Amino acid sequence: MASKPSIPQGTRDFSPAEVSKRQYIIQTIKSNFEKFGFQPIETPSFENSDTLMGKYGEEGDRLIFKILNSGNFFFNKNKIELPESIESLQVNSAETISLEQRIELNKFTGKISEKALRYDLTVPFARYVVQHQNEIEFPFKRYQIQPVWRADRPQRGRYREFYQCDADVVGSKSLWQEVELVQLYDTVFTSLGLEGVTIKINNRKILSGIAEVIGASDKLIDFTVALDKLDKIGEDGVKKEMIEKGIAEEALVKVQPLFNFTGTFADKINQLSNLLSSSEEGMKGVEELKFICDNVATLGLATATLDLDVTLARGLNYYTGAIFEVAAPKTVSMGSIGGGGRYDDLTGIFGLKNMSGVGISFGLDRIYLVLEELQLFPETVAATSKALFINYGDAEALYASQAIQKLRKENIKVELYPDNVKVGKQFQYADKRLIPFAVIAGEQEIASNSYSLKNLVSGEQISVDFEGLKAALLA
Amino acid sequence: MASKPSIPQGTRDFSPAEVSKRQYIIQTIKSNFEKFGFQPIETPSFENSDTLMGKYGEEGDRLIFKILNSGNFFFNKNKIELPESIESLQVNSAETISLEQRIELNKFTGKISEKALRYDLTVPFARYVVQHQNEIEFPFKRYQIQPVWRADRPQRGRYREFYQCDADVVGSKSLWQEVELVQLYDTVFTSLGLEGVTIKINNRKILSGIAEVIGASDKLIDFTVALDKLDKIGEDGVKKEMIEKGIAEEALVKVQPLFNFTGTFADKINQLSNLLSSSEEGMKGVEELKFICDNVATLGLATATLDLDVTLARGLNYYTGAIFEVAAPKTVSMGSIGGGGRYDDLTGIFGLKNMSGVGISFGLDRIYLVLEELQLFPETVAATSKALFINYGDAEALYASQAIQKLRKENIKVELYPDNVKVGKQFQYADKRLIPFAVIAGEQEIASNSYSLKNLVSGEQISVDFEGLKAALLA
Repeated sequence: MASKPSIPQGTRDFSPAEVSKRQYIIQTIKSNFEKFGFQPIETPSFENSDTLMGKYGEEGDRLIFKILNSGNFFFNKNKIELPESIESLQVNSAETISLEQRIELNKFTGKISEKALRYDLTVPFARYVVQHQNEIEFPFKRYQIQPVWRADRPQRGRYREFYQCDADVVGSKSLWQEVELVQLYDTVFTSLGLEGVTIKINNRKILSGIAEVIGASDKLIDFTVALDKLDKIGEDGVKKEMIEKGIAEEALVKVQPLFNFTGTFADKINQLSNLLSSSEEGMKGVEELKFICDNVATLGLATATLDLDVTLARGLNYYTGAIFEVAAPKTVSMGSIGGGGRYDDLTGIFGLKNMSGVGISFGLDRIYLVLEELQLFPETVAATSKALFINYGDAEALYASQAIQKLRKENIKVELYPDNVKVGKQFQYADKRLIPFAVIAGEQEIASNSYSLKNLVSGEQISVDFEGLKAALLA
Repeated sequence: MASKPSIPQGTRDFSPAEVSKRQYIIQTIKSNFEKFGFQPIETPSFENSDTLMGKYGEEGDRLIFKILNSGNFFFNKNKIELPESIESLQVNSAETISLEQRIELNKFTGKISEKALRYDLTVPFARYVVQHQNEIEFPFKRYQIQPVWRADRPQRGRYREFYQCDADVVGSKSLWQEVELVQLYDTVFTSLGLEGVTIKINNRKILSGIAEVIGASDKLIDFTVALDKLDKIGEDGVKKEMIEKGIAEEALVKVQPLFNFTGTFADKINQLSNLLSSSEEGMKGVEELKFICDNVATLGLATATLDLDVTLARGLNYYTGAIFEVAAPKTVSMGSIGGGGRYDDLTGIFGLKNMSGVGISFGLDRIYLVLEELQLFPETVAATSKALFINYGDAEALYASQAIQKLRKENIKVELYPDNVKVGKQFQYADKRLIPFAVIAGEQEIASNSYSLKNLVSGEQISVDFEGLKAALLA
């Protein structure tokens, strides 16, 4: 093969330094998930296509990676003919393809592909719960940290393979879960040293209530999509868009307070109570928010802030109660680093009704970028050896190996340079690998049953016996 | 969706108990890899097809999962027509398809699929080394623990998605690596409490030497494939197969010692020296084995045994030096639980010559089954909470949550039952989840600022203040 090898667009190789940092984040999330009583599950990387298709909207379906039926067997079920409308098709994008052609193409795809890569962890989780419902003790608090795949157009910070870190509870409507999830966010980000994150909270029932109050219940999605843009396009922009979508101008007067929605959490709750007093659903949302906020306030957060953001609408399609989103500290320019919410009918798509679920997710890649930018990774994260034993030949290497073996039993990471090459090259290797100590054990040291330990940062060198060596490397 | 959801053939869901046990094995392997100076890398789940295709033989190619070009874009490069010989094809197995049809089918597959799921970790590692050669400090000691996918016919213990756990060194021909890899196997299995494994070792050069001595160098593969079956079909069976493959009967007389190959490692080395004295390559192999064996013997193994097995030939296609395989203790009926070897030209397939590699792999699924059968998983592996706080209503739940928050800060795993339901149901949940303690905090306890701690195993119940609670749960 002549050309330099490469990897597919939107995927990544991770170097040792990168893996160690990612593992540090994952390990922190994982240990806190477990501290909060969540248990791990894992699901297969690919699912039957019908488990995934139709669960993420038309756009989502298009972004699901399909796997070709395996081996040469993919024509074994039906006589397959490429539909006439496709046969001579040359399309450059999805937009130039007609609906009929798309349907034909999907049919064809369905015949040559029956499996697809996981698109998120929520649908596989719902499938898992239904499939294993008789083995599960409800309420089921599960966490799952695995990669997902999306055939999205790659761009900065958006990949075709990335990890999701999810914690969900299914089978309980208790708002104490929401309280705990806020605490969980606070605990994880505090553990990572990332202080000052804002946990934004909203409630689907508030949004429904507002739409009801302004007589636009049938335009809930249009209304919330517009409101969600307040940050970006401002009050006038949002109002313009709402009017374009057919919301009456006089209706907007009623919700004017939303455009200057400031004050403490309690202030905001009061304003919403006034605004939504005529909507039963809206008032239910206010009550839920108040419960969560009051209890979180009593318990206290370590470093995060809980903020009521009435414009927050992410994933409105399936959230039915609380909606969460976490913003990085304002000093960093970065989208949300976490999100979640409650969906009252998590498993209904697979035939198990009345299973309320609530969960949150951590955005590993973005958290990584934030920690990197703020230099919050501990120096000890890298999996580097504590000392390199210099190789002076087989007799010396054996002497070194005996010490190495004993040091490893003490859980000290040490290694022998494998080849008897120039000492300079061996020291250079230690330098490049950021190994802090070199151990020199030549004829002289062997004769006196000792070791010369060189600190590669300070340059200082001392002669020690084995106990001294162990003590120095354990320090 | 009416039908019960399911997962694709050959894939698995892992329950909390299973994930915890798998993580325990992976964590043990990982920490020992790092103790031996190996550094982690990760590569994408899918590679460009041309990175993988043609690297695993024809059978391997057929078992690679191909990914359909994404979205509706898969017809965008060329006008694609289903070849005439395929159009009306109805095959039930690869065997009923002609070579011409297979070629046509492969061409067609190549047009609708440009990516494929990783089949092992070795080829992606070789690709990584070549692609990142300028960032890597050689010798490069890397480990990689990630899933791989094979469209194999599923059967007991064989899955279509499974983890590989590999440690390899690339860029050094030093036999000290082989010595260390034997120690690494010993250390990992000892850490897992799995004593009495046998690390079998052989050398490709020994096999070549034997073939040379009997004048069957051109039949090396046939010869070794037959010899490899000695365990199963016995001496007569092996000889019969060799003769059928065209190896002269009188030649077999020369290697008669191989069929009664017993004694200590040193005895075997002596026998091989006699047998192979006329083969330069064979004697090189003997010398290498002796070096490894002598140094391992001097250093000593904790619980494993190193055994010279001259019939061992796994992966002969690419191994050029040492060949390793690990057998579980004889009390367990199980195939090999690890394997590896040296390949002198790891990265040549991607254009980087003269990069010798040597590595070993751990078979996660089989190790799991062995530990399960021998009941070697520690009881503490499961990620279960230490105590469940019973929920008596919102005021009580808040009081409980305050204690929970403080206990979690001490890294104690505790949880609140989310709903105020019948106490019996809550205790049942704790039982099923194997949570050892329940904490009862009702009106009475709140009034006296105390907690009732119930040991769910013994049934014993004591009244404690917060410090007492903490002490009991830390114990």
